[in-house]
Amino acid sequence: MTAVEWIDGKVRFIDQTRLPQEEVYVETADYRVVGEAIKRLAIRGAPAIGVAAAFAVLLAAESEEFTSPEALLAGVKSAVEYLSSTRPTAVNLFTALHRMDRALQGSGAASVFELLVRLRVEAMVIYREDVESCKSIGAMGAELIPPGTSFLTHCNAGALATAGEGTALAVIAAAARQNKVVRVYVGETRPLLQGARLTAWELTRQGIEAVLITDSTAGSVLQAGKVQAVIVGADRIAANGDAANKIGTYPLAVLAAYHKVPFYIAAPTSTLDHATPTGAGIPIEERDPSEVTHLAGARIAAEGVSVFAPAFDVTPAALITAIITEKGVLRPPYQRSIAALLDGTGPPVGAD
Amino acid sequence: MTAVEWIDGKVRFIDQTRLPQEEVYVETADYRVVGEAIKRLAIRGAPAIGVAAAFAVLLAAESEEFTSPEALLAGVKSAVEYLSSTRPTAVNLFTALHRMDRALQGSGAASVFELLVRLRVEAMVIYREDVESCKSIGAMGAELIPPGTSFLTHCNAGALATAGEGTALAVIAAAARQNKVVRVYVGETRPLLQGARLTAWELTRQGIEAVLITDSTAGSVLQAGKVQAVIVGADRIAANGDAANKIGTYPLAVLAAYHKVPFYIAAPTSTLDHATPTGAGIPIEERDPSEVTHLAGARIAAEGVSVFAPAFDVTPAALITAIITEKGVLRPPYQRSIAALLDGTGPPVGAD
Repeated sequence: MTAVEWIDGKVRFIDQTRLPQEEVYVETADYRVVGEAIKRLAIRGAPAIGVAAAFAVLLAAESEEFTSPEALLAGVKSAVEYLSSTRPTAVNLFTALHRMDRALQGSGAASVFELLVRLRVEAMVIYREDVESCKSIGAMGAELIPPGTSFLTHCNAGALATAGEGTALAVIAAAARQNKVVRVYVGETRPLLQGARLTAWELTRQGIEAVLITDSTAGSVLQAGKVQAVIVGADRIAANGDAANKIGTYPLAVLAAYHKVPFYIAAPTSTLDHATPTGAGIPIEERDPSEVTHLAGARIAAEGVSVFAPAFDVTPAALITAIITEKGVLRPPYQRSIAALLDGTGPPVGAD
Repeated sequence: MTAVEWIDGKVRFIDQTRLPQEEVYVETADYRVVGEAIKRLAIRGAPAIGVAAAFAVLLAAESEEFTSPEALLAGVKSAVEYLSSTRPTAVNLFTALHRMDRALQGSGAASVFELLVRLRVEAMVIYREDVESCKSIGAMGAELIPPGTSFLTHCNAGALATAGEGTALAVIAAAARQNKVVRVYVGETRPLLQGARLTAWELTRQGIEAVLITDSTAGSVLQAGKVQAVIVGADRIAANGDAANKIGTYPLAVLAAYHKVPFYIAAPTSTLDHATPTGAGIPIEERDPSEVTHLAGARIAAEGVSVFAPAFDVTPAALITAIITEKGVLRPPYQRSIAALLDGTGPPVGAD
């Protein structure tokens, strides 16, 4: 199962809103269909959004017969603007769009053909990097995990959230292949239930024991000593290590610290945002109130109540034990370790 | 609106499973209907369960033509046994049943008529005490609240959970009458959504601004400084102050402590269980997995996942700022303040 890929000039993705009931794949040559899929969370997960956006830009360039480089540049610009507006928090979206844009800024004049080649190469590099990042994150993260570990995770940071094997779930899967995993407690992740629908589906398909809990049962699970590690993905990590992730992540970090259980973020370096100094600068998407007030189309909440429905929260760096990236495991102080990694001065691969 | 009351030889209760869509009242002379209502959470909330159980015992005694005191005692015994089995965690249930039983243990022989009178008096005392307790809890709790307070609450500790005005919500309502309340953030309370369905309904009916959140949004709400007090009810408080309440309460207590926001329990003294030394001794009900895996009758969770679904968690006394009872506000160390209150040696009413 691949969340998003490029096949014969089209983007193919699994519609995650239909899971786990139906495994529906969509193939499209229209970049707007990809954009709408990101908006309605049919494609979701920060790395997968980045890859899908890169592919969507390529679709925009390839699907029309541009007769001049200028026309192609204008078409791409319009597609990038539209795709930028789909979701605000995951930085991978903007990173991927920026890379596609930069790929067009060559030296000297370029033909339409050359521009298309550059876009195709960049999109495929973004895709391959994500696939490889997942593998590397899994391998490096698994080294941190002692035998007999049960995990707690939240939302979905699995294959569905990336072009590869996932981030947090890649670590769990790699540790499981080393026979170090007992079971995984999965927070259902209200309001859209990515834990119950997606993560439980991925884990059981892999033969890893998954125990579903309501999000607020995490307290009892940690209190009872049932888990030895909390691991989640991230949608954007600020330069100081503050990490935005699915709403409900921050309470888990506080609980993990209170119970002295390690709290890991697993995310590719494309999630690092050196331009945002701290978590306070990360834009937090607010979702439609009906996602909280309604279930399966029927209103469950009393009339007259208002709703506060942020899609993400920010976990301060101080509560994060380590950030597992494809280029190495970052440790506090993150201001320094992130800067070193982005400068290319460290840490070396496999360093801890 | 009264959650449960005695009218003309019958128990009348509002079916809380139908709220907020429908306001359906049930009148019954059959104690088993009351017992089933407790089981299926049509009657819920520890104090309301206690009152309903007392009324149910009275129904069992009055609804049959017992021809001897022995027959009545046997009938009551059977009803008490059945009612004891309905739910395990709320101690008010067992306290009320014990009081009804003890009311029959008079000195010397008693006629059927006298036994019925004793049962009726005891049930009405239990009812009246709960109504008065709510008023007193509201008044005493409101004294703790500074002007400009926004609250966070969880589940439903309102009129629906008691025979009176509620416990935690009575404090909020009393503080609101003193113009000290800005708004109340209401955790939806998965899986059965008592916050979204019941607390939001009660607050908006009273004209108090209610903001609904998913349970795991509480972290962001506290992190942003949006609330100045967390207040909840309790289903059983051990002799050392450890408090069982709806699943999801414990994480709120940890978050409140982390953010230095006071965490209050509001509960009548009928919730205090001197026979249980610590929270470890409180039996925690586990609910049916389908409450987590299904929504509105449709399966949402992936097949093959198992479920951990405790209905309650236990907040250690160390995280509780104060326990607001009808007889006074208890402060740490609770071992001492609870013992003093149960011994009748203190605290005096209004003491803090």
